[in-house]
Amino acid sequence: MKKESFGMVHPQYFTFAEPPHRLKLQSGKSLGPVTLAYETYGELNDDRSNAILVCHALSGDAHAAGLLPDDPTPGWWDGLIGPGRALDTSQYFVLCANVIGGCKGSTGPASIHPETGKPYALDFPMITIADMVDAQRHLIDYLGIDKLLCVIGGSMGGMQALQWASSYPDRLRSAIPIATALKHSPQQIAFNEVIRQSIMADPAWRKGYYYESGQPENGLAVARMIGHITFMSDQSMEQKFSRKLKKENLSFQFTEDFEVEGYLRYRGYNFVKRFDANSYLYITKALDYFDLSGERFMPDVKKTPVRFLVISFKSDWLYPSYQSQEIVRLLKRKHAYTTYFDLTSTYGHDAFLVEIDDETRLIKNFLAHIDRT
Amino acid sequence: MKKESFGMVHPQYFTFAEPPHRLKLQSGKSLGPVTLAYETYGELNDDRSNAILVCHALSGDAHAAGLLPDDPTPGWWDGLIGPGRALDTSQYFVLCANVIGGCKGSTGPASIHPETGKPYALDFPMITIADMVDAQRHLIDYLGIDKLLCVIGGSMGGMQALQWASSYPDRLRSAIPIATALKHSPQQIAFNEVIRQSIMADPAWRKGYYYESGQPENGLAVARMIGHITFMSDQSMEQKFSRKLKKENLSFQFTEDFEVEGYLRYRGYNFVKRFDANSYLYITKALDYFDLSGERFMPDVKKTPVRFLVISFKSDWLYPSYQSQEIVRLLKRKHAYTTYFDLTSTYGHDAFLVEIDDETRLIKNFLAHIDRT
Repeated sequence: MKKESFGMVHPQYFTFAEPPHRLKLQSGKSLGPVTLAYETYGELNDDRSNAILVCHALSGDAHAAGLLPDDPTPGWWDGLIGPGRALDTSQYFVLCANVIGGCKGSTGPASIHPETGKPYALDFPMITIADMVDAQRHLIDYLGIDKLLCVIGGSMGGMQALQWASSYPDRLRSAIPIATALKHSPQQIAFNEVIRQSIMADPAWRKGYYYESGQPENGLAVARMIGHITFMSDQSMEQKFSRKLKKENLSFQFTEDFEVEGYLRYRGYNFVKRFDANSYLYITKALDYFDLSGERFMPDVKKTPVRFLVISFKSDWLYPSYQSQEIVRLLKRKHAYTTYFDLTSTYGHDAFLVEIDDETRLIKNFLAHIDRT
Repeated sequence: MKKESFGMVHPQYFTFAEPPHRLKLQSGKSLGPVTLAYETYGELNDDRSNAILVCHALSGDAHAAGLLPDDPTPGWWDGLIGPGRALDTSQYFVLCANVIGGCKGSTGPASIHPETGKPYALDFPMITIADMVDAQRHLIDYLGIDKLLCVIGGSMGGMQALQWASSYPDRLRSAIPIATALKHSPQQIAFNEVIRQSIMADPAWRKGYYYESGQPENGLAVARMIGHITFMSDQSMEQKFSRKLKKENLSFQFTEDFEVEGYLRYRGYNFVKRFDANSYLYITKALDYFDLSGERFMPDVKKTPVRFLVISFKSDWLYPSYQSQEIVRLLKRKHAYTTYFDLTSTYGHDAFLVEIDDETRLIKNFLAHIDRT
């Protein structure tokens, strides 16, 4: 079958927890009203059994596939979503929502606080992966979907897939957590903490209340540069940059000598144009708080009805394969039907966005065998 | 034999390249006068054949062993240097000098520029590992040492050991490069670039001219936190911190929740008290510029007379073992007598400072077989 892009899409919005109702959060606090920005690809079938929820990573958004008006950039998982692709939009109804706490249309720290008329800033409550999933469940209810065929995502998206299975095992038939973990290791927390410290060390951050004065651009750019190093592998950086110089000779000055330096600066300072620093703080904290290890996963479920496909990548040192293997061991203890692949790739953590062919082969086959009755 | 600390030491200073003379630098620029702060442990023997030069790493200094007056902290390699220790001060004359560009007594960006009467700041010329070694050679000349028994160091100290062998193969009998590389990979350059960007993004940096207004403390602290993550291993962080909380419960605020966060903040902000931000910039650049790969190593020497002991650590991901194996392959091509050990350790890059027992066994045996005639 011909594989093609889904084509034009348009952003959609769903608002719930309108006063006096509020979304109850894991912290004990609550939030409302809550808006989710989302996109859909394909058609929901008559018995509403063909819906697949795609969950995005730290700096992702609802634009997973196709093209938006006035934006030439295809969605972040465009290669995986479309007619004939792994998430085949001629068969499945695929949807993706921006997480709460984000800055791409869903309610987050840059949104207007209804009580003050100003952006929440640090008055926004701390949110967790479970809270993100609870908000998505409201969207699924609204769309009239009783049971998702699958929840799929990489990195933080994979945590959401695991959280869906743990929080609402009766609301999904399968889950595909990719390049993810049951909980952050201290090294992962440490990288996130330095990212947060970098943002908060920038005087322009103003303890979070910068929406009138402008973003803490330098702090956020440095934070993103740290991220980019962890997304790539030693080997992929060697292949892409080696020690190639930007000019013929070393400058013997504090300018960009090596191509890798220019790349990092470009990616760092480009990021500040499209992402809110406070969202980066809230979402990294949600990542660090996430912990479904041991008895925290499906606490009331002896034998899970959810089927799992777990995927990791050998060169991913941010979410190393041993963390996916911990997921698999936990799922086996819950007697889950679980398939696991540790894929060869040199792309490091970025592999989940890049290794489309390998992922397509595994995901297509896995989805074809999910019982929808 | 009883192993004991060397005891009290005192800082010494040597100044050369006094006007009109200057130290010629690799950049084409020059520097003078140049002061080196150094310490010595043990006695130089009559034929001056027992001198061992210890070279320090990025944030190290001349205080390698023993105790200084008014400072309770033993030198950074105290476990390796002293009577009966690996660098046995009852047999050897051990010395260590702060590198040029540093901030612990040797001439660096915080030193007074003789032409302006103010700190050099960014008028300090860019320096390289070869320049550091050239300055050390002046000190060795001054001490009347024709041939060093050994040059030893870890990380940047190991680069200096390799540079000594390449620049002055007739001035040393042996070299022990530990946990080091012939050149930085793009990943290593990337970490250093983010470290530099973090410092330079701090408005208090003032393009380097901050000596009257005060250090860019926040930028330097974040820079050092990045460093600390790379010095440890995933495993050593798990052993030391796991996901241990500072308080009983998660705070759901942007405070320190996990012990690893508190550790990083403490190490980061403690560092700004003892290290100059501009020195960090200059020295990281020297690390990135270093490249003795291929024909750059001992270009005029067909068969090196220097003996080598190369050591790496399996969990060191900042200077991975494959980089030490590249050193060994290059040395074999120069027909060098080379011994190589890839030691098991969970401590990551920090292992070269921690795994004293294993290092002692290898170094003692190696030094005992160096021909001094």
